[in-house]
Amino acid sequence: MRRVLAAEAAQYVGQRVRLAGWLFQLRRMGGINFLLLRDRTGIIQVVVGDPARLEVLAGLQAETVLQVVGTVVAEPRARLGVEVHDPVLSVLAPVTDVLPFEINKKILRPSLDVFLDNAAVGLRHPRKQSVFRLGAGLLAAFADYFVTHDFVQIRTPKIVAAATEGGANLFAVDYFGRPAYLAQSPQLYKQIMVGAFERVFEIGPAFRAEPHYTTRHINEFTSIDAEMGFIDGFGDLMDLLADLLRSVLEQVSRTHRTELDDVGLPLPRMDEVPVVKFREAQEIILRRFGEDCRRELDLSPQHERWLCEWAVQERGSEFVFVTHYPTSKRPFYTLPDPADPKHSLSFDLLFRGAELVTGGQRINDYRQLVDSMVARGIDPAGFAGYLEAFEYGMPPEGGFAIGYERLLARLTGAENIRETTLFPRDVNRLTP
Amino acid sequence: MRRVLAAEAAQYVGQRVRLAGWLFQLRRMGGINFLLLRDRTGIIQVVVGDPARLEVLAGLQAETVLQVVGTVVAEPRARLGVEVHDPVLSVLAPVTDVLPFEINKKILRPSLDVFLDNAAVGLRHPRKQSVFRLGAGLLAAFADYFVTHDFVQIRTPKIVAAATEGGANLFAVDYFGRPAYLAQSPQLYKQIMVGAFERVFEIGPAFRAEPHYTTRHINEFTSIDAEMGFIDGFGDLMDLLADLLRSVLEQVSRTHRTELDDVGLPLPRMDEVPVVKFREAQEIILRRFGEDCRRELDLSPQHERWLCEWAVQERGSEFVFVTHYPTSKRPFYTLPDPADPKHSLSFDLLFRGAELVTGGQRINDYRQLVDSMVARGIDPAGFAGYLEAFEYGMPPEGGFAIGYERLLARLTGAENIRETTLFPRDVNRLTP
Repeated sequence: MRRVLAAEAAQYVGQRVRLAGWLFQLRRMGGINFLLLRDRTGIIQVVVGDPARLEVLAGLQAETVLQVVGTVVAEPRARLGVEVHDPVLSVLAPVTDVLPFEINKKILRPSLDVFLDNAAVGLRHPRKQSVFRLGAGLLAAFADYFVTHDFVQIRTPKIVAAATEGGANLFAVDYFGRPAYLAQSPQLYKQIMVGAFERVFEIGPAFRAEPHYTTRHINEFTSIDAEMGFIDGFGDLMDLLADLLRSVLEQVSRTHRTELDDVGLPLPRMDEVPVVKFREAQEIILRRFGEDCRRELDLSPQHERWLCEWAVQERGSEFVFVTHYPTSKRPFYTLPDPADPKHSLSFDLLFRGAELVTGGQRINDYRQLVDSMVARGIDPAGFAGYLEAFEYGMPPEGGFAIGYERLLARLTGAENIRETTLFPRDVNRLTP
Repeated sequence: MRRVLAAEAAQYVGQRVRLAGWLFQLRRMGGINFLLLRDRTGIIQVVVGDPARLEVLAGLQAETVLQVVGTVVAEPRARLGVEVHDPVLSVLAPVTDVLPFEINKKILRPSLDVFLDNAAVGLRHPRKQSVFRLGAGLLAAFADYFVTHDFVQIRTPKIVAAATEGGANLFAVDYFGRPAYLAQSPQLYKQIMVGAFERVFEIGPAFRAEPHYTTRHINEFTSIDAEMGFIDGFGDLMDLLADLLRSVLEQVSRTHRTELDDVGLPLPRMDEVPVVKFREAQEIILRRFGEDCRRELDLSPQHERWLCEWAVQERGSEFVFVTHYPTSKRPFYTLPDPADPKHSLSFDLLFRGAELVTGGQRINDYRQLVDSMVARGIDPAGFAGYLEAFEYGMPPEGGFAIGYERLLARLTGAENIRETTLFPRDVNRLTP
């Protein structure tokens, strides 16, 4: 007998079917037991009226894996429009211990640490499932957009010989007795590949050995990277990014309606995204929020929150581009603005209180690139395989990187990025 | 003036257009110069007849990035049916050194090591591009299949606290002063996630610190992993795998026809795949090839080649499943065959001479799983976060892992897996 899924049961009214899933809840009302069975498509109610059958249920714990053979009966008050009567139950896999916390309630009670320690159980909670199903939908939508816009997917090494951005925050790996590191980003490789494919993307892990604990940093995250050649200016990159995000949000609003309803937060609209230069942003902060940060070379988390507040109130946008960050605070490959070399043709996209995307135009001239490295104390000799791409003709190019777990956190209203990472890694956490 | 791509030029006959790309070749015939310009869509011929314009070309090296504004003229003998006349050329990025080898010839001449040392240049070669574009097509096709079959994409950590398969072949990472390792596979995490989503997949890097050099091993590779719950037996997994590969091959034959033509190797057909048990395989080897390996617990590379030869000749299939490998040679989570516990409900799929996929049914009973670990000298205490998934109800389940670079090598006829890895990592190679 073929297994029927909960969401398919309504097609079998009046027939005997075989269902299988996890015991979500057992409700006793009078002499009748209502058993809720969860499978990957939903939760279906099974009515156990026959006292002889009740014995099987005695002592069953939530999350027991059950097979249910029963008759599908129309029941308009039930979630799926049907329920299952006259069931024959069998246990496919028992539960051997008391659950660390309840996952059959609307709200998860445990602290984040307890939840993460018991992720194998906690991730079964229906709302948690919706969050990560939505995440999977986002990943698919990103890939779809890239493919339909001529971007070639690349897979680049995560074990590397040198730092991408300088030298800090690297995890060291023992590579057959030689020193190596985990890649902070696929930056240099995606630039190399522009020389072949013009447009490339990669969705993969990135590693930052930042020893501090914040709600928006983890030490291993998923970076959605794109890089594009033959741009006419760094505005092309912001246009691409806005169009990409618009398309991704639109796609998941179609493909993941149920999950979005579960999550309960409306998706942001992405209309006209305001663009402010770094120095204008500092002026806005002074005028509106009274803090003078005009001598600083970067924005603090508080500054980013304020700018997002400003963008919502003054421009009706949850997104805001900040451009022309100080060149000295950006990596060596960042292109300085020819009209004002102390500032760069770079941008951040802020969303719901913090940076979501970092991008910009890169130096594509070989000589200028070598000079930029030397000026920062980086030895070009360690980057021969990268520099070769520029020696042999690299068009004007740029790109950006989107933090996937951070995006998912903002979209689902998670307060901590660890809530949107299946098995987060931070300074205190290496398991599960 | 908007940039027009080479493949779009035929839509603009009689018009002035702006093209941009790399100088692929310069051919002088009499007083006329033919310039071949390569962009991401193809190679277009530009005719430079005006002697005044020839000066710009003097000394230009292949791979120089050029902009060409010219008139599109129909030319049936040209590759794209058009060529460009009366061009105005400008250099967008120069070439500053002599190329390490020629990439505008049909065949790449350098040795593999020289090629890999200069990957930034070598990967621009049109046939090389076709190989990796086909690879990107495969990755997209895998993801498409999984999504349409209810598999949820997961992203699991690559920095882990313990070995998946025992203890050998691990790269050590210094994790804030604590010992950690690079994940050999997402095996344990994908199993955990079956408890939530029933069906999951992940396409990500995997790391094996094998110190030997062979043409079919690299130390960082892309693993295409799937895992599925509520199976009725391990045959379900082989059916899924065959259907997956059939669908992926069919999809790329539609989406990547040009690249397949370039590669020049026909895609394999995936009809009825022969299935032989491990011990039958050894009998076949004895009968047909005269080697008695019946006391061995694994197949050697030569044995795999022979079995593939047998499958092609006797069954007309380039694929062959070998099942029921000795339990002792498989990892602790492998389910022994209840009818013959010395052999396991596992399989390898061999293709064109070697193993391509490894998979099998897993132990889903908590007690049996703990016993299996203990019997192999693995301390269950180090796997608490994994075992929890089995304590709280895990359905019968299994899955498989496909080596992406290996698949791409077999499909494109590459002799060495390093030819189908953008930037391979091996015991001797950590750059570029």
